[in-house]
Amino acid sequence: MKADRVKKTIKVTFLPFETCVEVASGISILEAVQKTGLPLRTSCGGKGTCGDCVVRILSGTYRKKSSAALSDRLVSQGYALACQTAVKSDLILQLPQFQELSIKSVVDTRFFQKDRLSGYYEVEPPLRKIDLELSAPSLEDNTSDLKRLERELGKKISVGHLHCEHSVLKKLAYTVRQSQREISVVIFDSKEHTTIIDVFSQAEEKEIYGIACDLGTSTVVLHLVDLQSGEILSSASSFNQQIKCGEDIISRINYSQKPGRLQELHDLISGTINHLVEKTTATAGVSSSEIYYASFSGNTTMIHLFLNLEPRFIREEPYVPTLNQVPLVLTRDVGLNINPEARITCAPAVGSYVGGDITAGLLCTPILRDPDRNSLFIDVGTNGELVLGNKDWLLTCACSAGPAFEGGGIKCGMPASPGAIEGIKIHDSGQLEYKVIDDAKPKGICGSGLVDLLAELFIHGYIDRNGKFDETVTKEIVLDTEEGKGFLVEKAQKSFWGKDLVITEKDIAHLIRSKGAVYSACAILLKNSGLDYDKIDSFYIAGGFGQRLSIENAVRIGLLPDVDRQKFHYLGNSSLLGAYLILLTEKNRDFINQVADKMTYLELNAEPSYMNEYTGALFLPHTEMDFFPSVKKLFNANT
Amino acid sequence: MKADRVKKTIKVTFLPFETCVEVASGISILEAVQKTGLPLRTSCGGKGTCGDCVVRILSGTYRKKSSAALSDRLVSQGYALACQTAVKSDLILQLPQFQELSIKSVVDTRFFQKDRLSGYYEVEPPLRKIDLELSAPSLEDNTSDLKRLERELGKKISVGHLHCEHSVLKKLAYTVRQSQREISVVIFDSKEHTTIIDVFSQAEEKEIYGIACDLGTSTVVLHLVDLQSGEILSSASSFNQQIKCGEDIISRINYSQKPGRLQELHDLISGTINHLVEKTTATAGVSSSEIYYASFSGNTTMIHLFLNLEPRFIREEPYVPTLNQVPLVLTRDVGLNINPEARITCAPAVGSYVGGDITAGLLCTPILRDPDRNSLFIDVGTNGELVLGNKDWLLTCACSAGPAFEGGGIKCGMPASPGAIEGIKIHDSGQLEYKVIDDAKPKGICGSGLVDLLAELFIHGYIDRNGKFDETVTKEIVLDTEEGKGFLVEKAQKSFWGKDLVITEKDIAHLIRSKGAVYSACAILLKNSGLDYDKIDSFYIAGGFGQRLSIENAVRIGLLPDVDRQKFHYLGNSSLLGAYLILLTEKNRDFINQVADKMTYLELNAEPSYMNEYTGALFLPHTEMDFFPSVKKLFNANT
Repeated sequence: MKADRVKKTIKVTFLPFETCVEVASGISILEAVQKTGLPLRTSCGGKGTCGDCVVRILSGTYRKKSSAALSDRLVSQGYALACQTAVKSDLILQLPQFQELSIKSVVDTRFFQKDRLSGYYEVEPPLRKIDLELSAPSLEDNTSDLKRLERELGKKISVGHLHCEHSVLKKLAYTVRQSQREISVVIFDSKEHTTIIDVFSQAEEKEIYGIACDLGTSTVVLHLVDLQSGEILSSASSFNQQIKCGEDIISRINYSQKPGRLQELHDLISGTINHLVEKTTATAGVSSSEIYYASFSGNTTMIHLFLNLEPRFIREEPYVPTLNQVPLVLTRDVGLNINPEARITCAPAVGSYVGGDITAGLLCTPILRDPDRNSLFIDVGTNGELVLGNKDWLLTCACSAGPAFEGGGIKCGMPASPGAIEGIKIHDSGQLEYKVIDDAKPKGICGSGLVDLLAELFIHGYIDRNGKFDETVTKEIVLDTEEGKGFLVEKAQKSFWGKDLVITEKDIAHLIRSKGAVYSACAILLKNSGLDYDKIDSFYIAGGFGQRLSIENAVRIGLLPDVDRQKFHYLGNSSLLGAYLILLTEKNRDFINQVADKMTYLELNAEPSYMNEYTGALFLPHTEMDFFPSVKKLFNANT
Repeated sequence: MKADRVKKTIKVTFLPFETCVEVASGISILEAVQKTGLPLRTSCGGKGTCGDCVVRILSGTYRKKSSAALSDRLVSQGYALACQTAVKSDLILQLPQFQELSIKSVVDTRFFQKDRLSGYYEVEPPLRKIDLELSAPSLEDNTSDLKRLERELGKKISVGHLHCEHSVLKKLAYTVRQSQREISVVIFDSKEHTTIIDVFSQAEEKEIYGIACDLGTSTVVLHLVDLQSGEILSSASSFNQQIKCGEDIISRINYSQKPGRLQELHDLISGTINHLVEKTTATAGVSSSEIYYASFSGNTTMIHLFLNLEPRFIREEPYVPTLNQVPLVLTRDVGLNINPEARITCAPAVGSYVGGDITAGLLCTPILRDPDRNSLFIDVGTNGELVLGNKDWLLTCACSAGPAFEGGGIKCGMPASPGAIEGIKIHDSGQLEYKVIDDAKPKGICGSGLVDLLAELFIHGYIDRNGKFDETVTKEIVLDTEEGKGFLVEKAQKSFWGKDLVITEKDIAHLIRSKGAVYSACAILLKNSGLDYDKIDSFYIAGGFGQRLSIENAVRIGLLPDVDRQKFHYLGNSSLLGAYLILLTEKNRDFINQVADKMTYLELNAEPSYMNEYTGALFLPHTEMDFFPSVKKLFNANT
């Protein structure tokens, strides 16, 4: 017998990526999510007990089997357990980890000290708008429109080799006549020549804008910039839509290896950028066609994916990218919805794992200008990147730190967005105090909070130097969870999700491996340079910790070396600020390209002693307590 | 009552343009042609008597009303009268004037004297293929593929600013690895920088080719050139498919003024070029993707249409083109089916009516090198263009000569293709002798034949100095035709079309106006330079006359001045040869751009004395017989 009714197909849309999937009526939201590839954790395997797979349903109808693991408050706000909810009609959903980003925290410029930059801070972009009044043609002087334009341009600026884009030639005749010969040209200067990339009537009153954009693996942040004043007109950030193809760059490279998928990844990052362009131009009230220049920073893989270049050999030994220094690229090559003749520049990489985010970041420090003082730049992310040196030499390496300090792979970890605990203090009384971003109900703990927590647990003796809970600590604070022993940071009833916020021994092991990877990379860099820590005058720290990283606690857990705290400077999103500096003046582009070219890349995989260093760093703060005298003192005082 | 059968739609295709039109069954071929815009003459208005509207039917079924005006031989070969033939099924047709072009005559290089060029004759194109063996990467040296490539390239050539196209970056990683690092790069050098425009495995054994192409208003001719040796591998020519939108540039500019039509004209010329690329690459056995460089010459309007630029203001006073000097253009901007990264160069124009065909032509003469000798360059076409001067100064102007010397507007006129009478001699006995291109049955008379005919008729007294038939000449030779008096060149039974080949008084008046326009333009140029003809050392003649122009006869009719015949040099298609020279070496491109920039353009419309000069030239050879002493002597001797 044939079915006489076709099973209804239902469209499920996930915000903010607008990822859609078509499913049969009645299947669970969890199955729908799994079809998209978007990340959604489920610890209990879909039994409805762990409460991890929570989603927020924004519209549509559905059938709930159970929401026992969710509080009434969450249920009343539209939250549901993906594994316990069946789709009945078209649904629009949001995965909670993509609910909101704190634009405040990602574009905070408080760490941007204009007097302490290596980069030039002046508004001299290679992009200029010039108003011209062309002379009227006559039978006696009937030379071409282009020549007439060039003649006037030559009176205003010194022009060497002048080139003119075909799109400009195409509209030149009418623009000249309709404007009564009062035109504006947009020119792009490069060392080699000047190119006319647009022409319009002065009456149109168009302006020239640029974008500076940090292409993070997880988060993309963009500034819309007035190229005449250098002012940042508006900013926006968003999750990188590529997340659904893999959370880290290695899984994205793997993902890209099937036909059509590199293009898909490219389209996703272009789509993410276009989304931010739309948001910022709408806020500032400008047209995206007035964006003529774009500056990007990002790690080597992100830049490859953005440029639609094969990333495979970045992850295969000997780890060779297609390029480190990136030539100017045209909009049409990368599919951005900005002016079609806009030029695109990318901060140069040094190697497969030291990317343009790092070189751009260096522009925001004084390192590249200091002739006598040595500095160490440390960017802690899923990959930790380090740069040691001064004006005359720079040594760099990368280590695989894992996503722990960005909240990844940690039970209650989350990015530094609203609801994240960003600072934790355990008082001698045992009372725990914390600070939540935007003073919301706590949803989880971000990097800076995790550093604090680990340090406090260690210093107060809740965990030992191996990161294991001390058996003598009262059971009230140390719980037995499904994932082993855990420390209770906040009780279910006070947390946003209505679930205990707990850090487990497994989480702590993750964090220790992360900090160990970074610290041992520092050690190898120093060894190769022949310097001790006391010969390093400044430490510049960047990364996704959030805004409130406690240097003291970072030292206590052995992430940062035990030196004078005055030497540390936290930078925030230095990659974005560097991209902004490169946008402002071509001098920075030249400068950082030269710097990147001279930097010595140390491949840790080729360093036999790295493994030894790493093993030594898998303790709190280190096997060698003497490396951390201030911590040793405190530890001995407390125990 | 409704018709119960839908009237059948029939597709009529015209070769060689593959123009298609859909018509209802039963309408005449003439109506179908008129729908396409293709030119087809009909003197009798479709009555089937004049025999002008002959077409050749290559396939399909049709119904003939009458073919009385056609010989049985023609009917047996598939010829039919368009006005007397109804379509019954899908048809493929050829308009006879587009039947064949003599590639021999359009690419004849016999006039190309290597030791008498202004242009450089050396094979040094800006395009080079360079083989590179990249070093193997290792953990110790894992810099990028691009850097590795640049390193090897730097060992072979001196590189200043090196740029790399995105399309090259995109395939670099796999090309390097699949070739075992034995790659070839194709680079394009400009003054400003070197650009890598392709990369492939050495094992692919690809070569680099270029095309040189003359974009004539009626005819397009193309050489396929090996850029390593400079050798012309194959050549092809074709009618310019734009003909269906107008036979001359003014009607094409008018045509372009409705929406979408500039694009249509652009697509037609690109289509014509692509067709020739296909033909020449097939002949030479190379891939069109191996064509990396293309050099074009053509009049200013043709170059505008090719580049898809608004041509309107070329024909509106004060006649201002968008550009004269053409920047390098990319393939994607003009839609050619050659390598997508190929560069396109166009010979520079001097003004709206002195185009790149003229400047390219000058490269094939010694004019631009002669410091002391003055030369006059005359290109006779629908527009006549003239250049007077030497190494130090050049004066140029253009006149509207009409298409008569290319066979246009003349009853029996035709281009210099197989079947055209290219030379005529009337013996004192009255016997007429002629030479047909390819020794075929005569179809018509091309430019050189018309010059001969006019001179012979004049010298032998058949026509007077006004171009009117002498009343005393026997009626046997001078016929009364529908278009007035005419001279019989060949009888119907001996001609290809089975129709009398006749030149009428109307035709003669056309020819006199044409030669008068050219001669009076010469006179104005000389007047403006302060020179007499005896101060001109050489005359270089180019144009669509065909290969056998008789200088003697051109003087006799007053087209060329009456000076020492040794001073005349016939050049053939100097525009094509100039485009070829520009392809061969960048030096010629720079040189001719500088020359064009210095040339003084004289606008005849702004010269009050031009009309007087023109009126004086509307006689055979001129009102002032004393300007033509040798003709005067001969004339007096004959009468």
